[in-house]
Amino acid sequence: MTTAADNGVVTAAVIVIGDEILSGRTKDKNIGYIADHCTAIGIQLREVRIVSDIEDDIVDAVNALRKRYDYVFTTGGIGPTHDDITADSIAKAFDKSIDVDPRAMALLQPYYERRGLEITPGRLRMARIPDGADLIENSISVAPGFMTENVITLAGIPNVMQVMLDAVTPRLRTGKKMQSVSIDLNSPEGAIAGVFGEHQKAYPTVPMGSYPTFRDNKPCTQLVLRSTDPDMLAEAAAGLKAKLTAAGLL
Amino acid sequence: MTTAADNGVVTAAVIVIGDEILSGRTKDKNIGYIADHCTAIGIQLREVRIVSDIEDDIVDAVNALRKRYDYVFTTGGIGPTHDDITADSIAKAFDKSIDVDPRAMALLQPYYERRGLEITPGRLRMARIPDGADLIENSISVAPGFMTENVITLAGIPNVMQVMLDAVTPRLRTGKKMQSVSIDLNSPEGAIAGVFGEHQKAYPTVPMGSYPTFRDNKPCTQLVLRSTDPDMLAEAAAGLKAKLTAAGLL
Repeated sequence: MTTAADNGVVTAAVIVIGDEILSGRTKDKNIGYIADHCTAIGIQLREVRIVSDIEDDIVDAVNALRKRYDYVFTTGGIGPTHDDITADSIAKAFDKSIDVDPRAMALLQPYYERRGLEITPGRLRMARIPDGADLIENSISVAPGFMTENVITLAGIPNVMQVMLDAVTPRLRTGKKMQSVSIDLNSPEGAIAGVFGEHQKAYPTVPMGSYPTFRDNKPCTQLVLRSTDPDMLAEAAAGLKAKLTAAGLL
Repeated sequence: MTTAADNGVVTAAVIVIGDEILSGRTKDKNIGYIADHCTAIGIQLREVRIVSDIEDDIVDAVNALRKRYDYVFTTGGIGPTHDDITADSIAKAFDKSIDVDPRAMALLQPYYERRGLEITPGRLRMARIPDGADLIENSISVAPGFMTENVITLAGIPNVMQVMLDAVTPRLRTGKKMQSVSIDLNSPEGAIAGVFGEHQKAYPTVPMGSYPTFRDNKPCTQLVLRSTDPDMLAEAAAGLKAKLTAAGLL
């Protein structure tokens, strides 16, 4: 991985494509996985959209987000059936042509032949790749993902999405890793909001979040401080702990 | 619930607000729940966005989606700490004023007094409601959600979100319910794509999706046909089953 230039921050968005997520039939498992992966490798996930299997909606989301973030990951809609329209939608978003790609066919043909499967028009459909895109290896079921400029198109099936994400990761520019410190309190959020809000003002570059939880049926709070600068993060966390202790809240 | 006028379709979007979802720290449980709920009551969920705790991002998402869909549900960011900026962002999106609301205070004050809790500025923050919004009851922790025209602002904590969603549901206009028929096949998607795609063309108003699964380590397929018209749905499903049977695929 190369390191990001400018401010050291690399950003991304995710577009989940699929009527089945919006109808509730399928519960998405990819957003949380990609979020964890991005945080781990030093990419800041800034936005997620879930859109239906409608070409205009996919094109609009891709074009809105690919200009705003360093990378856009899409999941879903690259299978062999008529409702799999992601590849064509990506081509349309970039105004590129799309056709059966010889590199993808070179992967798929021997895979089907070994299994005695006919190369149906549906299976050919999985070899349709936008012109100029790079392929992304699929070590589970062969049909590849692809990367069109900064848009990374992955499968929707979680285990296939995950091997594709691993395969493309070495090609991604990454930035400083966002680090975090958590502080668990036995007080409810309402009791600590004053001290906490004041401390945020003292460290505007260290985003601080407060998350209510319950322990033994009592409202508790987890505070999370985040920064790409470990020294600044340590200073902000130590300062907050001191203030909470002084106020009898830690 | 009143019935939708015009074409009988009522649409919605969801905006999930929170850095903790985008960082991967918290895995969202609300999208799938709201999706199921919408499908059950006759509202079609068309789009979801997850945005960070940045006012401009929230305002932009609210203003983009509230004009496009009948309802917008937001989750998260209505607690007492400085990172809870949803109420102010909604007010800004609608260009409405926002202040501590006497109706919300009438709920919160006795709740705090009974528990001997001080009404801190943080707790007062949970009574800030955009001018003209209707309150949504919170039977778990009292601090209310609210409905600003067609935008429904709910808590992020799943069990609190769920009671608020139940509380607001009788106020929502609903449409024809989307019904579905599933057909399980022992064939992989690539084998059925031709028949399936042709059948979709014969019934353009019945969206048909294909979802790959694995049974006994063998690739299988679930087909799902959806329509708000039960007669049309039954006809399309029966026709598809006949074609699959004739092709030796069912």
